[in-house]
Amino acid sequence: MSEIENLLREDLRGQSPYGAPQLEVPVQLNTNENAFPIPDEVAAKVAEFIGRELRGLNRYPDRDATLLRSDLATYLAQKEGGHGLTVDHVWAANGSNEILQQLLQAFGGPGRTVLGFMPSYSMHPLLARGTGTTFVDAGREADYTLSPAYVREAIAKHDPDLVFLVSPNNPTGTALDDAVIDAAYEAARGIVIVDEAYAEFARDPRSTALGRLEGRPRLVVTRTMSKAFAFAGARVGYLAADPELVEKLLLVRLPYHLSSITQAAARGALACAAQLQAEVDELKHQRDRIVKNLRAKGLPVADSDANFVLVGGLRDAAGVWRAILDRGVLIRDVGLPGRLRITAGTEDETTALLDAFDQALQQRPELFDSAIELQQEQQP
Amino acid sequence: MSEIENLLREDLRGQSPYGAPQLEVPVQLNTNENAFPIPDEVAAKVAEFIGRELRGLNRYPDRDATLLRSDLATYLAQKEGGHGLTVDHVWAANGSNEILQQLLQAFGGPGRTVLGFMPSYSMHPLLARGTGTTFVDAGREADYTLSPAYVREAIAKHDPDLVFLVSPNNPTGTALDDAVIDAAYEAARGIVIVDEAYAEFARDPRSTALGRLEGRPRLVVTRTMSKAFAFAGARVGYLAADPELVEKLLLVRLPYHLSSITQAAARGALACAAQLQAEVDELKHQRDRIVKNLRAKGLPVADSDANFVLVGGLRDAAGVWRAILDRGVLIRDVGLPGRLRITAGTEDETTALLDAFDQALQQRPELFDSAIELQQEQQP
Repeated sequence: MSEIENLLREDLRGQSPYGAPQLEVPVQLNTNENAFPIPDEVAAKVAEFIGRELRGLNRYPDRDATLLRSDLATYLAQKEGGHGLTVDHVWAANGSNEILQQLLQAFGGPGRTVLGFMPSYSMHPLLARGTGTTFVDAGREADYTLSPAYVREAIAKHDPDLVFLVSPNNPTGTALDDAVIDAAYEAARGIVIVDEAYAEFARDPRSTALGRLEGRPRLVVTRTMSKAFAFAGARVGYLAADPELVEKLLLVRLPYHLSSITQAAARGALACAAQLQAEVDELKHQRDRIVKNLRAKGLPVADSDANFVLVGGLRDAAGVWRAILDRGVLIRDVGLPGRLRITAGTEDETTALLDAFDQALQQRPELFDSAIELQQEQQP
Repeated sequence: MSEIENLLREDLRGQSPYGAPQLEVPVQLNTNENAFPIPDEVAAKVAEFIGRELRGLNRYPDRDATLLRSDLATYLAQKEGGHGLTVDHVWAANGSNEILQQLLQAFGGPGRTVLGFMPSYSMHPLLARGTGTTFVDAGREADYTLSPAYVREAIAKHDPDLVFLVSPNNPTGTALDDAVIDAAYEAARGIVIVDEAYAEFARDPRSTALGRLEGRPRLVVTRTMSKAFAFAGARVGYLAADPELVEKLLLVRLPYHLSSITQAAARGALACAAQLQAEVDELKHQRDRIVKNLRAKGLPVADSDANFVLVGGLRDAAGVWRAILDRGVLIRDVGLPGRLRITAGTEDETTALLDAFDQALQQRPELFDSAIELQQEQQP
């Protein structure tokens, strides 16, 4: 063992860094990015907001990101009925990863436990490790869903300090029923986090826990601008919660964590929310097209409220992943037996994806479950 | 105790967030910011680099910030003799705070200890707390300096996993001798971090530990663009170290921690390094002017290699702070008895500061040590 490896924290030794494999492929549908580049008008608005900050970059940013948080509260109010949210209910950071890290630093840490239900967002266990919080995986029901009873029982068994729920869940794509969130909140004594990174893509726009924050001071809803705002490169995550909980995050956030440029860029994008929403609608359309088309081919697909789809019925998931890649489309092998995750793309990208599946089914039927092979054979 | 307070990590309860008091005052010399706004030509270059990224913000950033790290290595090579540094020796994050946090996450954490020599950068103990690392303060010699023997003895006594050295030190302003850094490295079995946030302001440009990295795999030099590049608002910190050590930070960095915009903005500013260096030279001149002028008034001032000065000889430091503020100049009470910290400003700002000291000495002599009163009285 090298001198540096020997000095590394024990639980990090021999580990590999997180990261989706990035390959140079024409159609990239592997990281749940928004398929649409920023429209020129939106880019101009973002540039305008950033431009105002450049001269003053010699000064530290607003530590509390007040204007951005206010704009985020306004966005939530206009978009989703408000739920009485104000600047004091909202907090922002460099991506929802940093939001989650701050929550774990404040309410988790050594000797404390966070409960998750895997398969889910793969960063949750890594963020727990990074903050010294013990991650306990309660798993899921056989079809990867969660019921109120399942969640209640897991919480009673593990008595966690924090609970991670993800709605819509990644990689399955399905939003949680309110009853699951309420059951978790009632069963838990600690913080309940509902990670809603993909909320804007829900089939029913009322699929959000924002409306349940009132009277639930331990409930936190986390969001990101990476997906609905096509802003993954800008790194802006946020949360809505009780103002007292938000106040506590100031104790662990790095001072001046969010740059003046990031705050301005996010405000520029928020000013274009309506225009970006049109692209969300188009991605939902392509997502539904994938669901319908793959189901028509006999492949089981979970209901999706996100910008991605989890397809099953694969005898050899790694083989299918490779077969799709050979046809110029990169999707994601998330390590679930017999399943792959596909991000919805533009119309052309989605067509390329569906064509690649068609070809794979015809040319490599042995990669799929036999029931699907059979169905393919019966087709004219 | 409220429900939320009760759920907070025990060591955070009753704490207040970090933060310099911000007051609306004409002359702000309290947070060691670079006094010069970004010049128009530099702002244009930064905007140009950012502009190229806007359309592609729907995609995640380069996780490894390769182009930025390469530019930083080039900057260090051109500016300070190179020291054989390449992209693999350099790592970047959202401010040097995040750099330090990542180092503590990788090599510190629960059950581990970081040794510091306070008074020094006030974030070090807070970053330790945030990562569950035990912070041990070995203090300093009576005049706040550090000798090789003092450092060696403290390390032998506490056997830390990491050591924080700060050169030039904040709030004293004086750079460390190479002999102190070598003594720390030889005495320690763990990581030795030299925090060089203000290195570009050193009286002797050879005052950097960069030249000592070769053959010292446990040595880390941290830097920031906040000061010399007038880029505090953009949040860009970096480090230089052995490539194997850099590689380990990938295990704890949040994936995509550094936005595409931040990476581009920093590269734009680095392209203007020569122009920004002219302002560093002017700030060094104003810094030396403060040192000379306050010493001439009989006030003891530590040698400064930074963009700030620590002045002593104050019977009532809080009273002097207030007296200076009453004259429209905000400086920093860092909590050291009889001392205040002053950031060097533009020529006009520095003149306002020196005038405020003149007036305070004449009108409120009781706030200063009696020897200084005496000297003032003897002046014509």
